[in-house]
Amino acid sequence: MPGTLFIVGVGPGDPDLVTVKAARILGQVPVVAFFAKRGRIGHARSVAVSYLRTDVAELRFDYPFTTEVSAEDPRYATEIATFYAECARAVAAGLDAGRDVALLCEGDPFFYGSSMHLHDRLGGAYRCEVVPGVTGMSGCWTRAAVPMLEGDEVLSVVPGTLPAPALAARLAGCDAAVIMKVGRHLPKIRAALGAAGKLDRAIYVERGTMAEERVMPLAAHDASAAPYFSLVLVPGRQRAR
Amino acid sequence: MPGTLFIVGVGPGDPDLVTVKAARILGQVPVVAFFAKRGRIGHARSVAVSYLRTDVAELRFDYPFTTEVSAEDPRYATEIATFYAECARAVAAGLDAGRDVALLCEGDPFFYGSSMHLHDRLGGAYRCEVVPGVTGMSGCWTRAAVPMLEGDEVLSVVPGTLPAPALAARLAGCDAAVIMKVGRHLPKIRAALGAAGKLDRAIYVERGTMAEERVMPLAAHDASAAPYFSLVLVPGRQRAR
Repeated sequence: MPGTLFIVGVGPGDPDLVTVKAARILGQVPVVAFFAKRGRIGHARSVAVSYLRTDVAELRFDYPFTTEVSAEDPRYATEIATFYAECARAVAAGLDAGRDVALLCEGDPFFYGSSMHLHDRLGGAYRCEVVPGVTGMSGCWTRAAVPMLEGDEVLSVVPGTLPAPALAARLAGCDAAVIMKVGRHLPKIRAALGAAGKLDRAIYVERGTMAEERVMPLAAHDASAAPYFSLVLVPGRQRAR
Repeated sequence: MPGTLFIVGVGPGDPDLVTVKAARILGQVPVVAFFAKRGRIGHARSVAVSYLRTDVAELRFDYPFTTEVSAEDPRYATEIATFYAECARAVAAGLDAGRDVALLCEGDPFFYGSSMHLHDRLGGAYRCEVVPGVTGMSGCWTRAAVPMLEGDEVLSVVPGTLPAPALAARLAGCDAAVIMKVGRHLPKIRAALGAAGKLDRAIYVERGTMAEERVMPLAAHDASAAPYFSLVLVPGRQRAR
């Protein structure tokens, strides 16, 4: 009898923001799998580690690249597909041996998570349970102490990787916004927010809920690049109340 | 010394999806406060109850109306402001007596939550800690088993209360969408999705993660109204991969 694949959202970074369900599953599984950037400790694993069995077996999947190869480069699609196929084979080997495997995911698995690529490949063939998590954006707006939106307001979640005109158009057509994948796109994001008339209320949050957290007005943050765990919040609730 | 106000997101409905931090706070506070619809059990309380102290004091706040008075009606703004001011006074009385109070919130507090109105009124005057939660939309797309978006895709979160043309425009200009506050707006939502070319992939989810959960293609659901805990998902990821 094959094992069950648990795809577990571990939340925004603070281990206390793992759900009760995730904590229980992490304490039971004999195998844990996670993605990591080469040479780094593996963020999802570091969030989960206090819940894991001390004898847990680990499958670490190092991304072949993160930002070094552009998503438009033809190499990107080919190599990333090969990578996910190899990860899926490694997880499947554990499941076929009758062992349950928990695949860790930062934030919520179905919200821009790499884990959905293993869900695509394994979800049909094996018993699979997904555990939703607190998103990074919820963690960040909580730490920034900004209620984001109410009533009939519209939220846009926009990757900073979009071309400048598309980014400006999306930012103009919403009440509140979250800009993900900030990285080296920070100057473009600042310009697009300015064009949309929303720069003055934009807030930059880096490593929200984690030890090295930083929160500041985007206008006061003049860096040209940001680390992976950063985003920009544009709170709604601008109508007179 | 006044007590601390904890504004606690309890997640989408399944008590197992409460965070470890929320569970710990709920087990410690002497006073719990929550909003409820008149005559109903109080949904947030029912999610939290297994974590609460058996001797916890309860502050129940019955909304003066929910959908009976339109948000455009001048009565709405006045009466709801009076209501929140009264709730804030009741919570402040507990804090002034030196007791910690946990205000419960479905989903995540800063994402369309009523609790932000008490945060507005009390957050400056008292020690206040907000605990983010798994949103209702995360719970719903997990149960519907649909990874929502990836890469540089844009998500719009749109209330179904918007006028039809605004709704259709928002739905046309995104890769993935979540339509909140469905209620009696279901026929309008169906029409707007049809106009935006997205009806065929829209999924209706009612009471996601709860006992009476229902998940079905929106096109196969011909009701004209939906209960409060329902939403419509439009998954992204439509590009050839």
